[in-house]
Formats: sequence, structure tokens, C-alpha cells
Amino acid sequence: MTVSLFILNGPNLDQLGTREPEVYGTATLDEIMAEVVTYGADRGVTIDHAQSSLEGEMVDHIHRAGRGEAQGIVLNAGAYSHYSYAIRDAVAGAAVPVVETHLSNLAAREEFRHTSVIAPVCLGVVAGFGADSYRIAVDALLHHLGGAS
Amino acid sequence: MTVSLFILNGPNLDQLGTREPEVYGTATLDEIMAEVVTYGADRGVTIDHAQSSLEGEMVDHIHRAGRGEAQGIVLNAGAYSHYSYAIRDAVAGAAVPVVETHLSNLAAREEFRHTSVIAPVCLGVVAGFGADSYRIAVDALLHHLGGAS
Amino acid sequence: MTVSLFILNGPNLDQLGTREPEVYGTATLDEIMAEVVTYGADRGVTIDHAQSSLEGEMVDHIHRAGRGEAQGIVLNAGAYSHYSYAIRDAVAGAAVPVVETHLSNLAAREEFRHTSVIAPVCLGVVAGFGADSYRIAVDALLHHLGGAS
Amino acid sequence: MTVSLFILNGPNLDQLGTREPEVYGTATLDEIMAEVVTYGADRGVTIDHAQSSLEGEMVDHIHRAGRGEAQGIVLNAGAYSHYSYAIRDAVAGAAVPVVETHLSNLAAREEFRHTSVIAPVCLGVVAGFGADSYRIAVDALLHHLGGAS
Amino acid sequence: MTVSLFILNGPNLDQLGTREPEVYGTATLDEIMAEVVTYGADRGVTIDHAQSSLEGEMVDHIHRAGRGEAQGIVLNAGAYSHYSYAIRDAVAGAAVPVVETHLSNLAAREEFRHTSVIAPVCLGVVAGFGADSYRIAVDALLHHLGGAS
Amino acid sequence: MTVSLFILNGPNLDQLGTREPEVYGTATLDEIMAEVVTYGADRGVTIDHAQSSLEGEMVDHIHRAGRGEAQGIVLNAGAYSHYSYAIRDAVAGAAVPVVETHLSNLAAREEFRHTSVIAPVCLGVVAGFGADSYRIAVDALLHHLGGAS
Amino acid sequence: MTVSLFILNGPNLDQLGTREPEVYGTATLDEIMAEVVTYGADRGVTIDHAQSSLEGEMVDHIHRAGRGEAQGIVLNAGAYSHYSYAIRDAVAGAAVPVVETHLSNLAAREEFRHTSVIAPVCLGVVAGFGADSYRIAVDALLHHLGGAS
Amino acid sequence: MTVSLFILNGPNLDQLGTREPEVYGTATLDEIMAEVVTYGADRGVTIDHAQSSLEGEMVDHIHRAGRGEAQGIVLNAGAYSHYSYAIRDAVAGAAVPVVETHLSNLAAREEFRHTSVIAPVCLGVVAGFGADSYRIAVDALLHHLGGAS
Amino acid sequence: MTVSLFILNGPNLDQLGTREPEVYGTATLDEIMAEVVTYGADRGVTIDHAQSSLEGEMVDHIHRAGRGEAQGIVLNAGAYSHYSYAIRDAVAGAAVPVVETHLSNLAAREEFRHTSVIAPVCLGVVAGFGADSYRIAVDALLHHLGGAS
Amino acid sequence: MTVSLFILNGPNLDQLGTREPEVYGTATLDEIMAEVVTYGADRGVTIDHAQSSLEGEMVDHIHRAGRGEAQGIVLNAGAYSHYSYAIRDAVAGAAVPVVETHLSNLAAREEFRHTSVIAPVCLGVVAGFGADSYRIAVDALLHHLGGAS
Amino acid sequence: MTVSLFILNGPNLDQLGTREPEVYGTATLDEIMAEVVTYGADRGVTIDHAQSSLEGEMVDHIHRAGRGEAQGIVLNAGAYSHYSYAIRDAVAGAAVPVVETHLSNLAAREEFRHTSVIAPVCLGVVAGFGADSYRIAVDALLHHLGGAS
Amino acid sequence: MTVSLFILNGPNLDQLGTREPEVYGTATLDEIMAEVVTYGADRGVTIDHAQSSLEGEMVDHIHRAGRGEAQGIVLNAGAYSHYSYAIRDAVAGAAVPVVETHLSNLAAREEFRHTSVIAPVCLGVVAGFGADSYRIAVDALLHHLGGAS
Repeated sequence: MTVSLFILNGPNLDQLGTREPEVYGTATLDEIMAEVVTYGADRGVTIDHAQSSLEGEMVDHIHRAGRGEAQGIVLNAGAYSHYSYAIRDAVAGAAVPVVETHLSNLAAREEFRHTSVIAPVCLGVVAGFGADSYRIAVDALLHHLGGAS
Repeated sequence: MTVSLFILNGPNLDQLGTREPEVYGTATLDEIMAEVVTYGADRGVTIDHAQSSLEGEMVDHIHRAGRGEAQGIVLNAGAYSHYSYAIRDAVAGAAVPVVETHLSNLAAREEFRHTSVIAPVCLGVVAGFGADSYRIAVDALLHHLGGAS
Repeated sequence: MTVSLFILNGPNLDQLGTREPEVYGTATLDEIMAEVVTYGADRGVTIDHAQSSLEGEMVDHIHRAGRGEAQGIVLNAGAYSHYSYAIRDAVAGAAVPVVETHLSNLAAREEFRHTSVIAPVCLGVVAGFGADSYRIAVDALLHHLGGAS
Repeated sequence: MTVSLFILNGPNLDQLGTREPEVYGTATLDEIMAEVVTYGADRGVTIDHAQSSLEGEMVDHIHRAGRGEAQGIVLNAGAYSHYSYAIRDAVAGAAVPVVETHLSNLAAREEFRHTSVIAPVCLGVVAGFGADSYRIAVDALLHHLGGAS
Repeated sequence: MTVSLFILNGPNLDQLGTREPEVYGTATLDEIMAEVVTYGADRGVTIDHAQSSLEGEMVDHIHRAGRGEAQGIVLNAGAYSHYSYAIRDAVAGAAVPVVETHLSNLAAREEFRHTSVIAPVCLGVVAGFGADSYRIAVDALLHHLGGAS
Repeated sequence: MTVSLFILNGPNLDQLGTREPEVYGTATLDEIMAEVVTYGADRGVTIDHAQSSLEGEMVDHIHRAGRGEAQGIVLNAGAYSHYSYAIRDAVAGAAVPVVETHLSNLAAREEFRHTSVIAPVCLGVVAGFGADSYRIAVDALLHHLGGAS
Repeated sequence: MTVSLFILNGPNLDQLGTREPEVYGTATLDEIMAEVVTYGADRGVTIDHAQSSLEGEMVDHIHRAGRGEAQGIVLNAGAYSHYSYAIRDAVAGAAVPVVETHLSNLAAREEFRHTSVIAPVCLGVVAGFGADSYRIAVDALLHHLGGAS
Repeated sequence: MTVSLFILNGPNLDQLGTREPEVYGTATLDEIMAEVVTYGADRGVTIDHAQSSLEGEMVDHIHRAGRGEAQGIVLNAGAYSHYSYAIRDAVAGAAVPVVETHLSNLAAREEFRHTSVIAPVCLGVVAGFGADSYRIAVDALLHHLGGAS
Repeated sequence: MTVSLFILNGPNLDQLGTREPEVYGTATLDEIMAEVVTYGADRGVTIDHAQSSLEGEMVDHIHRAGRGEAQGIVLNAGAYSHYSYAIRDAVAGAAVPVVETHLSNLAAREEFRHTSVIAPVCLGVVAGFGADSYRIAVDALLHHLGGAS
Repeated sequence: MTVSLFILNGPNLDQLGTREPEVYGTATLDEIMAEVVTYGADRGVTIDHAQSSLEGEMVDHIHRAGRGEAQGIVLNAGAYSHYSYAIRDAVAGAAVPVVETHLSNLAAREEFRHTSVIAPVCLGVVAGFGADSYRIAVDALLHHLGGAS
Repeated sequence: MTVSLFILNGPNLDQLGTREPEVYGTATLDEIMAEVVTYGADRGVTIDHAQSSLEGEMVDHIHRAGRGEAQGIVLNAGAYSHYSYAIRDAVAGAAVPVVETHLSNLAAREEFRHTSVIAPVCLGVVAGFGADSYRIAVDALLHHLGGAS
Repeated sequence: MTVSLFILNGPNLDQLGTREPEVYGTATLDEIMAEVVTYGADRGVTIDHAQSSLEGEMVDHIHRAGRGEAQGIVLNAGAYSHYSYAIRDAVAGAAVPVVETHLSNLAAREEFRHTSVIAPVCLGVVAGFGADSYRIAVDALLHHLGGAS
């Protein structure tokens, strides 16, 4: 069976590589996603991905992916992680496991980033490893799904 | 005079019937809305309705309905109820009464669902009666408007 | 089968019609109850009701009604809603559904009225529709019980 | 000298055996009290007891018992434990030691049950041992009074 | 015109003279009330008074007095001052001015006594002057009513 | 023995009669003080008074009066009541009783006026009776000192 | 060098002139923007502007403008000011200065409007001057950029 | 069947009899334990006990006892009661019931002693009866285990 | 009619140019005020100004200016902004509009600077534009007063 | 160059496999560590590990490992994660990166587990993947160190 | 080089020796300062000192001393320590080290004395050693300045 | 009489000189202690000292020293200062004065370091003077004990 995963990126992540590179690094989101897709392909895993600045559009993406189009979701909801109960509800309703993922170690940043309202309904969390966080989250999902890395 | 009402549903409500049926029941939103529209028609009331996952789109819907296209609004803002001051401002500016409506009894669920930032600018609240909540809210609005059920 | 409901009103509600009419209207509690009883009778529903200023007496009323004398309870606990864990415990122990009901939209009033300690153990909430709130709550109970309005 | 104790039970405890038996057990309050009275009688201790749903009546009971009719009081104030400063004041003014007693381990239940406003003016606390809690509290009082179990 | 006032005392105040005399003095409530009645009589003012341990009974007293049987109320609600929103609502609905009165200076005692939920709907507050507080509150009411001391 | 009292008024009270008359009335501070001085003189009591906008000057006034120049102090610290721990320390160190006094009922106004950091070290509080509050506070002090009104 | 600025308006501001005119005035957003554009043109400054009810669309507007299409941004995020960390992140990542602007003085309104989560990453704040706030913010930006008003 | 219990005492309890005797009495821990062991022996109950100042050592003791070496544990964790989630986890994982026990009535002492992080995972609580607390806790455990006192 | 404004600076602002120049710039307060006076003179506006480290002296300044000596006040209360309810009361009582002004963007600095207790009674706020803030606040006041810049 | 890592496990983790298996699984810590050591060996990485119930011993382990004996640390501090500022200080002083690791998704459990006082000084966090969390954390460290998985 | 220090005492410290001697001792401030001046003179250190009840005057003293008239400041701001951000700003702007000094151990007194808003911008703190605190603070400053005691 | 003091250092202080030297300096704990011992010896004072990472071992050290082996204790509990109520209890029970000592000025560091749970039961506090803090604390103790420096 082929495993199919979905990576969803939230607001401002489309600015990666240009926005505050001292925090987020210089690679663009496209470059990072391309690398993860390749990483998946090498393991026979299909990885689809999307980026949206719109909370409601992210909700819809999770509905679609969570309905069976993917077996697992890697979610970097950006700033929405800290207040979007709408996205939380979408994740809670998803039929597949979701891994919350962040480039930076949020616990080391501003107070408001210390709480994720989405994390309680996720499978787990991977944060702080820069662009590597995506690959690590993919690995974690594959392990959880019984796949191999 | 014919009474015309507008029912606005927020994020994740389009998943009704599939998402967490133990909390929200098995009827889909389309089925529930159809039933309410019929209920209105039986009483000579025209009921229009919409669903949106987008906070800003909901704001625009309330502007339009609140401007006179409807004499009252039944609003189930879903998770936005708990943090969308943008929707609150739209409701506060509406020229017609708005009834906050929820399928479940929010007071019996997670802490974050105990406060609605929208309720203070609504006419009243109906919550906890499942799909019936819509019909009850319509009734409440009709009474308030001097209509009959 | 005849349905039998119980409406319980708490402290200060016996002053309706005289106390702060700009908030609560000019109808007396007796008038309002008479109207609801008639409304029930028209639908073959027996509605008993009581008012008490005494928290402990309200607890006892709920015990009695909740033990099977009624199939559902409409509860307007007045100010006790905000701190009476004794009434909450009585409601939690009731064998029949209880609907929390308020004349005014509490969310639009003083801070201390924004939280009901009783709501979490009720079936649902109806608030903000003046004297109509009782009739709407009765309807909601009937629907829940499978009766007809 | 014969020792005489008073056990005072608060709101909803008269529902023991019927209300939420999974939390409170199936014995009725009458059965539990009878057992404790016998336990006392076996040790030459007279135990009087009362139950009231009325906060003010409980205050009066404590005044009476605390004035010398009993040498010690076992108090299960039920939900009043968490907000009745009136009962606290009555206990603080009692001339005899009072032991706060609960059937369940309140620390393991809802947040609001974690704080007793009465405990700070009691001699001590016994909680979590079901109907045994009363007998244990009686023992504790007897020891404190220099009696024997 | 004769002025008629009502003094209402809450729970535990009937224990004055015996309960914690180092805080509340050794005069009994009867003695204190007799003294105030005489003080009023000397000035042509009729003073009625009552004491109750029951929150709901206090609510009823305020309804009766506030309905015109008295031109002003002196209220020492005891511990209820700190949580009885039911009494607050009764005071708010009274047609005559109410002066909150305490024997002790609550600000100098336990934290929970620092806030009165009733004070915001009173005319004013007199606290800390022992038994004199009643006479001072009567004086304050008379001045407010245009009477003379 | 002649009794000598000191009345100290804080910031903005020199604007009485012009500032927000709907809250504070139209009498000027000079007029109010003159009236209180006369009231005292009629009873053989010497009343000195001062007003200062300066927190530190108020501290010095309390030192001077509290050192024995007066047998009691009536203190209306205005807005300083809510944060001046310096004035609190001065009052705590005064050898004579201090009565906190306010024209308005602070509990009925903005949140920040609900707490006085000075009250815990005062004898008592008189608030809400407009200009009468001063005369009532003087009376309260005289009673406390064993004087007559 | 010509200076080019961007004014971004958030949810409900498109209702200006009709929504709560007692708070926000009767001029429409179009009229206000036209006036500011003219004001800029008179000083050789090009002012582009947009309105959106969608949080994510506002994020995208700030990305575009902040990337160099404008030398400065005037941002009235409406209710999003109080919870949109997504917009905050967009502003933090902007390469040009952003001035937070409000028609009303938020500190004088509801509690939830007292905190802006966006202000900490802005250059400064202008609030409370009605439609003039925009022109004043433009002036402030021009001064900061070394332009002239 | 012989019942075997384990009593575990935490930090500073080895100082009993010397440390703050006005709070904790003059008996040493050795004396108190000896008395409880005898009390148990009289009832055919084997009581083992230990004291440790080390949080981690207490964790290990609970593991050992909770694994079946004892049928119940009496735990006086001293100050660790208020912050040791490590001990809480050990108790939660124990296969036998644990009774939280304190010599003093913690509710009557400093604020930080009012909350036990361990109590929520215990069977019940006995506190405030001095050295008797241990014997009472043993009794409570025996009753719970179906033993006899 | 000539417009006359008053600028009031609070504690530590007399150290401008020497104190923490990386936060506040190198211009002295005298230089900044001279520049603003000239700016006003060019527009036919008389600008008076004062600086005081004394809270009470600032209160007196506002009384004087607010009584009609000026048509508007620009107020930079420095650190007093965050706790001086005395100054707030003076501003609330002023008969002319007051604009709160700060050199730095307080929202970007220490937590305690995020709240101004004075802002709620001001006309509006200008903050974050360094010495320009004064000129911008003057402009805002002139616009509000119907003057021209 | 060979990479050498250190895995440190805190209190109660030695009970894995027996304690609450529904939360933590049935594998013992020894089995899990053996598996991770093998995983490392397969990649030429030496993995040392230790478990301690003692906070101070964990501090010492981190000193030793952080001083250069390992190039990275995987830290599962168990319950200490939520209050051990001593361990936090040890991590902050470590010269090598530390990855906070948990078997369960703490955000989905009790409130007290939602905050880690150690996370702010770690490189990143991996939580929620059961025993896999260790392997994933090792991978994350290796990537960070430039190693390969 | 001669070292020159400045000791600044705040409100109520001029009452030392008379105010609450059980807390502050019986020595007057003059006596204490004389002793410290002598202590300094013995070591070739010139010590100037001042006392003020006025917050703003204290600010000015710190400006003057902090501008180079002294090489270090010993500051006992009395009650101002707990709320004077104006003094904090003055200290933050001082070019010389400031040592916060208190006679009593503030942590052992009322809650409001537990936080100093000035301490975060000081070099260090010395508190709890009575009049010795000044000499100890002088020593600490001398050590810091490289002087000798 | 010879004075004998005990200096107790907590977790991570054994890393001084290597851990974060920009915060704590480059001297090792051994070097600092040696210097203090010499300083004491020069004054005829015997100084014993210990370091422990184990909270319970620190408790035991304080018991031993507090029992009379030393006449005073200098305690730098490191991070335990902020949560170890076990150490607080040990200090409270010590028969000799304890001075809380810190190298850095905790008020200027992370929020969690602003509160010491141990300080309320100490004689006083010395913090912020680097390695000198120990010598200063010794001096303070000697003065308190009537010794000479």
C-alpha cells in the first residue's frame, strides 16, 4: 500500500527565506517542500502540500485531507496555532493523525507562542529543528502508521 | 407582511453528520437546513441560509443580512464564537436582531467554549438542543418580531 | 401519554413587573406563568410551577420534580445561577432533563452574570427572549422528549 | 462523662443512595446515620444528627450544637463547603471542634470542589472514604476530645 | 412626616456578644437594636428591624421594606455580603436607599471579606465602628432623606 | 477636654463644585469644610483641615496630625486611596484613629476604585453620602473617642 | 523621490457611515480614503489603499506592501487588532514601518479593545481622532521617512 | 490474610518534636511511628515505614510499596505535597490505595499549603489531627481494604 | 481666534538627551519644546509648556490649563501614565481635550508600560514617533478644535 | 568522527511497561533503550543512557554529558519537566544541544503537563509518539549535528 | 581617588524610631545616617544623604546624584519601591550603580511588599538587617567600585 | 566565643566559572569559597560550606547546621529558591538565622526568578554582587550575631 501524506502550512510561511531569516532560515517554503516531497518519494510516500493565509481555507484543507485523501497530516498552522479554535475543531474531526510542526522552538519565543490550542487534538508535536522539522514529522507519522523510514 | 430570516453557519458545521457524531448527531447540515426551511415555509416565513469557514466571509454575510435583506439572523458561528471580535462587531452593527445558536450545550464542554464573545451583542441565546436548536431559535426570533409559530 | 413539566423560578422573580421593568418587562410572574400553563394545556401538557427565594427550597423542589413527578424542568434560578453549587448538584442528580432559562441575555449584563455554575449540568440554555423564554424552553423540552409543539 | 457529638449534613445528601450512586454509593443517608449512631452507642457516645438543604438552617444548627449541646461536630456541608462563608462564620464561632467530612475525595473531582471555604476554621478534614468517612471523623473527634474508640 | 427605617441583620449576627467577642464586642444584637430604636425614637423616627440566617428570607425582607414600608434600609448582610447576588438583586430592585453597614472594618480582615457584591447597588457604606455603625448608618440615611439627627 | 480633629483631602478635591458635578455635587471644598468646622464648633470640637495634590505632602500632614496634634483624622485621599502605599504606611504609623471617607460610593464606580490600599490600616470607612460623608465621619470619630454628637 | 504609502483597513470598516455612527461618524470609508489620497497627492505622495474582511487577505496585503511596493503602511486592522497574531507576524516581517491607526480611542471602550497584539511590532500608534487619524498617521509616517507635510 | 501497610514520611518530618513544636507537637517521628506500628500489631496488621528528604527516593519507595509489598500506603509527603508531580505520578501508578495524611490542618496555614498536587490521585485525605492522623489514616485504609479496626 | 495649547511633560523627561539616548534620542526637552513652540507660532498657535517630576504638581497644571487657559492639552505623563489615577482624575475633570503622547511605542517595551490608566479619559493617543510625537499631537488637537495645520 | 549521544530519563520512567500501560504502552524502559541503542549503532552513533528519580542526580548527569562527553542530549525529565528550574538551569548551561522528549502528547493531558519549564532552553521538542519519540529525537539531534539517519 | 556615595531615603523613613518600633527599631533616621557617615569617613568615603516624602523630589535627587555627584547610590525608597515606576525610570537612567536597601525583610511582610518595581534596574539588593542594611549596602557598593572596607 | 557559620550552595553552583560566565563570572565555586573561608578566618570566624544538587540533601544540611553546629547560615539555594517549599520548611525550623544569598540580581532576570519561596523565612537577603555576595552575607550575619567585621 502506498502511503499518502498532506503537509499544510499557514500564514506567513510563504515568506520563508525573506521574513526574519535570523529566526526562520533562508530557504524558501517551495525549496523546503520540494526537499520533503523528494524525501517521501525516496520512501515510496506521496506527499501533497498547500499553503494558505486564510484560516477558513486551512479548515477546508484539513476537512479534505482528513476525509481520507491522506493517511496523515503535518500541520504548521503558524500564528493560527495560538488562537484558531476553528482549525482545532477541524483537526479534532479529522479521521487521520495530525502532527503539529514548527520550525522554531516556540517555548523559547514570545509568551503568546507558548500555547497551542491545536496541540491537544493532535497526535504529537515536533518543533525547533528548522526545515528539518517537516522531515522529522513525516518520519514520525510514517512510524505511527506502521510505515518505514 | 412576509418575514424573512437568515441562518448563518460557521466553520466545521459543513462536516455535520460525519464529524464527531457522538457530539453533533448524524444529520448533515443540508438535511438540517432543509428541515428548518420547510418549518419556516409552513409558517409563511422565508429562510435563507449560508455556511462559511471564512471569518471575513461571515462578517460580509452579516453585513448583507443585517442591512435589511432579513428581519432577523440565526447565527451559529462555531468555534469563531469564542474569539471572533470581527464577527461580534458585525453583529453589533446589524440593524436586525441576532440569535446565537449552538447544537451542543457549550457550558458542558471544554473551558474555551464557555465564553462567547458574540453573545453580548446578540438578542439572546439558544443552545444544547441539537438540530432542534435552529428551529427553536427561529421561533424565538418570530416571537420577538411579533410573528407567529 | 401526557407530558408533565415543572417550572422553577428563583429569588426576586416574584418581583417581576415591579422590579426594574426596563430590564425585565411589566408582566408579573403570575401572569407569565398563567400564560405558559395555558400554552401547555393547549398542547396537552401539564405544567406545574413554583417560586422560591430560598436556595435550599429550590434544591428540594428539584429533588421532588427530578424524581419523576415531571418529565422535564425549566429552571430560572435567578442570581443563584451564578454561585449555587447546591442547586447544580440537585440538577446533576435529577433523572429528567433541565433547561436553564433567563428572561434577559445575561452575556449583555454585569460580568458576574456571564457564568452559570448550573448550565454545565443542564440539557441546554434559552436566554434573552423576555417572558417568551419560558414558552421557548417548554418547546425545547417537548421536542427533546419527543412531544409536539 | 458521656460524650455527645453532632453530625450535620448539607444539601443533596438526603438523596444519597439514589443520586449518582457511582459517585456516592447506594446506602441512604438514614442507613449511614443509623450505622454511625450505633457505632457511637457501642462506645458510650451519643450522636445526634440532622440534614438541611438550607444554608441558614445549617448555620442555626451549628450555633445550637456549638453552644455546648455537643462536644464536637462532624460537618458535611455538601456543595456549601465551596462558597458558604456564612457557615464558615458559624463554625469559626463554635466553641467546640468541627471536623469537615466528605464521602468523596474532592481533590479528584471538578475544580470548584477543590477549595473548601470552611476547612480553614475546622479542626481537620476527613474525605474520600465513602460512608466510612463519618465513622472515621467521629473517631478523630473522640481522640481529640480524649475519648476512646 | 414620620420617617420609618428598617434594619436587616444577616447570619451569625444573632450570636453577637458570644461569638468572637474580641472581634465583635460583648453587646448582644438585641441590646444593640434596642439602643438604635431608642436613638430613632428620640428623633421621631420609627425603626423596625429583623435578623435572619436565611439568604432567601433576607431577600423577602428587602422586598417588603423596599416596597415602601420603610423609607430607607440599613443592611448588615454578614457573610452574605461577599457572595449573595440574590440579596444584591433584591437591593437593586428596592425603591428606597440602602446603606451597607458592618461592625468591623472588613478591609482589615480576611481577603474574602474585602469585596462586597452588594455595595455597588447601595447608597453608601459605613463600616468599622462596632455597634455605633448602626447609629451612624441611621444618621446617614436620615441626612440623605432630608431628616435631622 | 477639647477634642481636636484633622481632615485631610487629597488630589482633585480642590476642584469640587466645578469638576464632574454630576458625580461630586456643586459645593466647593471650602464651603464643605466651613460647614464641617461649624458643625464641630457647635459640639466644642476643633477641626483643622488641609488639601494637597502631593502624595508626599499628605504623608507629612498625617505624620504631623498623627503625632498628637489631633485626636483623630478624617482622610479623603482621593485617587491616592487606590495605590498610595506611602500614605498607607503613614496612616499605619499614626498614633490616632483614621477614618477613610469618600463623597461617592466607590463600589458603584470604575473597577480601580473598588480597592483602597489605605482602608486596611484605618479604623473604619464612610462612603457615599456626598458632602455629608465628612460630618458622618467626624461623628464616627467622636463616638469612637468617647465624645458626643 | 516620490513617497508611496499603503493604507489597509480591516473588517467592518467598509460599513463606516452606516454602522454605529455615534461611535465612528457618518463619513463612508470611500469618502475618508478619497480625502486622504487627495491630502497625499497635495504633498506629492502616492497613497494606495485596500479594505478586507479576511484576516488572511490582510496578511497577503501586508506582504505585498511590506515587500517594497510602499515605503510605509497605515494599518487599521479593526477587531483583528486584538487577536490576530497572523497579522502581527506579517507586520513584524514587513521591511517598511507600519503605523497602527484607529478612529476611536480604544482605551475608552470595551476591555477587549484595550490590548493590540499588533502594536508591539509597529512603529507607533495614532488613535482617537476619527477620520483625521488616517491623515495624522500619514503625516507621522512621512516625518519618519524624512518627507514633509 | 495478614494486611501489610506502608507509611512514608517526607522532608522535615524527621525533625518532629524539635521543629516548631507549637505547630507539630513534641513527639518525635520515631515515637509516633512506634505507636502506630503497635496499633497495627494489635490488629494483626504489619506496618512498615520510612522517611526521606529526597523526592526521588520517595518516588522509589512508592514504586516498591505500590508494586504489592503493601496493600495500602499512608503518605505524608510534607512540603512535597504542594509541588511534587513526580510523587503524584508515582502514586497514580501505584496498584494499591494511598491516603494523603497531614499532622496539621493545611487549610488553616499558609496559602501555598492549601493545594496538594498529590491528593487528586489518592483514595482520600486525613489532616489536622496531629500524630493521631496516622492512626486514623491506617484505620481508613483498613476499612477500605475490608479489614477491621 | 487664536488657539492656545499646553504641553505637560512628566518625570524624567527633563533628562531627555542624556538618559538612555538609544531609546529616547539625543535632543533635550528644551530643544524639543522650542521646536514645537515655533511650529505652533508658524500657525498662529500659542503653545505653553511645563515639566514636573511631581505627580501632584502635574495635577495642578492640568487643573489650571483645563480650566480654560488652554483649548487643549498634550500630555506626556512619563511613568505616571501607568499608575497615576490622580492625574487621570485631573484629566477626566478637564474642560478641554487632552492627547496622551509618548516618544516611544510603549507596546514594544516592558509589560508595565503597556497599560495607561490615563488614556481612557483622553481624546486620543499618539505614540512612537520620537520628538515628532509632540508636533503630531499638536496637529491632532488643532484638527479636533477645527484649527488648521 | 563518531557521534555520541546521551539519553536521560527522569522519575517514574523506570516503571514503563507496568505503570498505566494505556497511557505509556507495555514496553519497559530497558527494552526501549535497547532498541534506541541498536538504532544508533546501526548508524555509527554511540548512545549512552541513564534513568534517575532524583532531580539533583539528573542535574549532575546533564553537567557531565553537557560538558562534552556527549554531542547531544535527549531528555525526558518526566514530571520534573513541569517545575524543575534546577534541571532547566543545568540544560541552559550545557554546551551541547538538548531535545525535550515525551512519550505522550502532554498538551492532551492534565493542565499541569501543558507547560515545560525546561523547553525554553532546549533546541526543540518531540512529543506524542510513544517509544518512537526517542528514536525521532535522536534523528533530530543527528540532523542538527550534521549527522545522517 | 575619594569615593563619594549618596543615600536616599523615601517616605515615612523620617519617622524611624517613633513609627512601629517593633518593625523598624528605635534609632532615628538622623542617628542611623550619622553612624553610616562616620563608617564611611573611617574608610575615606564621603557619604551624602537625603530624605523625601515626595516621589518627584526623589526622582530629582537620583538625577542629580546619578549624573556624577556620587559614584554610587544606596536607595531605600520605602513604600514607593512597590509602585513608583517614575523612580525606577530615574534609577534606570542613572550613570552610577544603585543598591536597593530595606531595613526589614520585605518577603516576610504583607503581599504588596514582595515586589519591588525598582529592583530590576538596580545593581543588587540588601534587605532585612535593620539599620545595618545601610552599612552593608555601602560596603557592597564600595566592593563593586573596587574600594575597600 | 568563636563564631561558626555554614554556607550552603545549591544545584548548578558547582558549575560556576564554566556555566554562563557572562552571568555568573569566571571564578569557580571552590575559589569563591576558599576566599570567603579566608575572609572569615581573618576575623576569627570558622566557615564550613557544602554544595549539593539534591534538594533533600540540602534539607538535611540545614537541619544539621540549624541544630547548632553553626550560629548562622548563608544559603544560595540556586533554582530551588523559587519552588522548594521543602527547603523553606527546613529554614523555618532552623534555630539560627539564615541569609538568602544570590550572585546575580534575580529581579533583573527571568520572571520565575523574581519570587523566592524561601526568603519569607530568612533573616534577610543579599543579591546581585557576584562572588562578593557571600562575603557581604557573612558580614551581615556577623553584625546580626553581634560579631565584628
